[in-house]
Amino acid sequence: MSTTQQSPTLVKDEISIHPPKRLLFGPGPTQVHPRVYQAMAQPIVGHLDPYFFEVSQDNQRMLRHVFGTENEWTFVISATGSGGMETAISNFVEPGTKVGVFANGFFCDRMTEMARRNGAEITRFEKPWGEAFSDAEAAEFIHRVKPQVVMYVTAETSTGVFQQGEAICQAAHEVGALVIADCVTSLGAMPVHVDKTGIDIAYSCTQKGLGCPPGLAPITVSPRALERLKSRKAPMQAWYLDLQLIDSFYIGHKYHHTASATLFYALREGLAIVAEEGRENRWERHRRHQRAFVAGIEAMGLAMHVADPADRLWTLNTPRVPESVDDARVRQYLLEKRDIEIAGGFGPLAGKVFRIGLMGYGSTGENVLLILGALEEALRAQGWNPAGDARAAAERALG
Amino acid sequence: MSTTQQSPTLVKDEISIHPPKRLLFGPGPTQVHPRVYQAMAQPIVGHLDPYFFEVSQDNQRMLRHVFGTENEWTFVISATGSGGMETAISNFVEPGTKVGVFANGFFCDRMTEMARRNGAEITRFEKPWGEAFSDAEAAEFIHRVKPQVVMYVTAETSTGVFQQGEAICQAAHEVGALVIADCVTSLGAMPVHVDKTGIDIAYSCTQKGLGCPPGLAPITVSPRALERLKSRKAPMQAWYLDLQLIDSFYIGHKYHHTASATLFYALREGLAIVAEEGRENRWERHRRHQRAFVAGIEAMGLAMHVADPADRLWTLNTPRVPESVDDARVRQYLLEKRDIEIAGGFGPLAGKVFRIGLMGYGSTGENVLLILGALEEALRAQGWNPAGDARAAAERALG
Repeated sequence: MSTTQQSPTLVKDEISIHPPKRLLFGPGPTQVHPRVYQAMAQPIVGHLDPYFFEVSQDNQRMLRHVFGTENEWTFVISATGSGGMETAISNFVEPGTKVGVFANGFFCDRMTEMARRNGAEITRFEKPWGEAFSDAEAAEFIHRVKPQVVMYVTAETSTGVFQQGEAICQAAHEVGALVIADCVTSLGAMPVHVDKTGIDIAYSCTQKGLGCPPGLAPITVSPRALERLKSRKAPMQAWYLDLQLIDSFYIGHKYHHTASATLFYALREGLAIVAEEGRENRWERHRRHQRAFVAGIEAMGLAMHVADPADRLWTLNTPRVPESVDDARVRQYLLEKRDIEIAGGFGPLAGKVFRIGLMGYGSTGENVLLILGALEEALRAQGWNPAGDARAAAERALG
Repeated sequence: MSTTQQSPTLVKDEISIHPPKRLLFGPGPTQVHPRVYQAMAQPIVGHLDPYFFEVSQDNQRMLRHVFGTENEWTFVISATGSGGMETAISNFVEPGTKVGVFANGFFCDRMTEMARRNGAEITRFEKPWGEAFSDAEAAEFIHRVKPQVVMYVTAETSTGVFQQGEAICQAAHEVGALVIADCVTSLGAMPVHVDKTGIDIAYSCTQKGLGCPPGLAPITVSPRALERLKSRKAPMQAWYLDLQLIDSFYIGHKYHHTASATLFYALREGLAIVAEEGRENRWERHRRHQRAFVAGIEAMGLAMHVADPADRLWTLNTPRVPESVDDARVRQYLLEKRDIEIAGGFGPLAGKVFRIGLMGYGSTGENVLLILGALEEALRAQGWNPAGDARAAAERALG
């Protein structure tokens, strides 16, 4: 019955998508695990299908583990990491809310802008891009400003800086404030410990430490934060990102939006891989390879922008661009000659740092050596010569 | 060098995702074309990669074709269809904006709620769920209320009603109003004709007429609407859905959020398939199969909830549930015995209609016969007997 077929003469058998095979060593997205690709090729189910909620519950359970939390409200937002940021801020910041921001990079500025759009009264504690806040100065700021909501970034993707959260959270709770922590470049690759640290609202993405493609934003909300949410004077403006409605979908199975089975499968697979490897093993893998990478960078004669090794991320490195070198040319060389993506700096760090990520599936010893070799090659092509043997130094560090 | 490997003893080779193979005949998501699954298994690139913008530009070009528009601002929002609705409303509705809503179903109510949260002064023209608005009454409403923004749903997924837009748009423009049209269940499967109709802002989803998984929301914005947007008094609240920032990303390649290469590949493939089949051929395919389905339903002895055939969607059918039958049991039977998903009604139509979709890749003659046969079987299992031979009637209609 020919009329019932999609005409085979019209629609081709072959796909039209032929992407280059990039090696993704920028700030994210990072390499996707082959199992995650396979998971995404599995047939979708509806967003109210019992199997969908099974996958979703698995995701919730495994996200609690990587976030280090027992928060009931741990689920995903159907948007990217920046949508997670928007969700965290717009649910907990109302017109007139006093917000204190630890501001030492691009993503703190984005948080500030979102809070401003939500009508917050904002006080910023500013530091140069590349520096972290000490416990003492964090506590002093919070006790002086007495904000209702405190925001900080655990892993600043624009600078490569890690920020300790314990002192921030303790001081915040002493003044009755909620803490929102950006975990976009830490979750699944570095310790986050939401409960132990005292974070009230943490959000992340799928395309970095979890080794999936972008598209979803994991989020977790403490019981304290939940209470605050329920006492809001007016409903939040963005219906799509309203945590109370989203909770009714995940918990009550009440239709809210058509969540993407494909992305949920991907996350399920990414989290299963984390569980198989072991959360702590995975953190240690990232730490070891980051150290080896830095050993190579320093042997080469480049300086790390983040001075104190304790303040450096295990996921994203920011070696400084040598004076004589145009960073855009280096990046172009790597992309065109080697199919390697790294990123440059922006804002005050434009042209001054490379941003090189080793995370998720991409954090391997081979990749440390590969990227060091390629970077050296690209720098040589710009007339710059290394001081020493980067790969040998990295190999020694790898042991 | 063993330290450099992800330990193969820890991470398994086999994926952990084993979904049931559902036949998706609900209101969406619908069946995904096999080529789209293949596209999603392709290696991702970064969101600032030249290849990403190539794919994105292809999507923009092909979306203009399916939307029937020459609007420069035609791109996708990194959220589901409801996120597209939120984007359309929150960019164009400010506190105090006078909004007129054509309200005859669930999704018009959702639009109303979003407009309310944005501070609109709302006037609703209400009709029973299942009826469309005539040209004359649409024009009378708009001329009487004189709104600044008019909203309507082209294809009401909760009722199966199609709404003509020409009279709405003409009257709206006469009073200087912008028109927002929900095209979630029409785009790619039924004529939309944004420019010819006079729609200013149209949005849709990927998981219905375009045959992709959910996750993105195509949107298009007319030059008139763009002018209005640029004259906003204050920036819109949701940074993530701010069309002016999103435009800077697509056009200026300025980082905004990490768009999902995987979902962009899927959409690129889905749109390529639409182009190969031919937009008009595809509409005609949907129309023919919907007609055949209705012939079968009526032969069986069921009534269509939407009385006038001209008001019925080509994508989603709403046969009425027979008096003696519990619709939840029918749906459960289909899911458990036949792996078929259909949906029930909600709101005033709860328990009263089935919602059965034939769209995208799923709109085939075989599927018409398959779903009619399965529905008949499920109804018989509830003790209901058909009046006549549904499949024979459908086969005659298929020709």
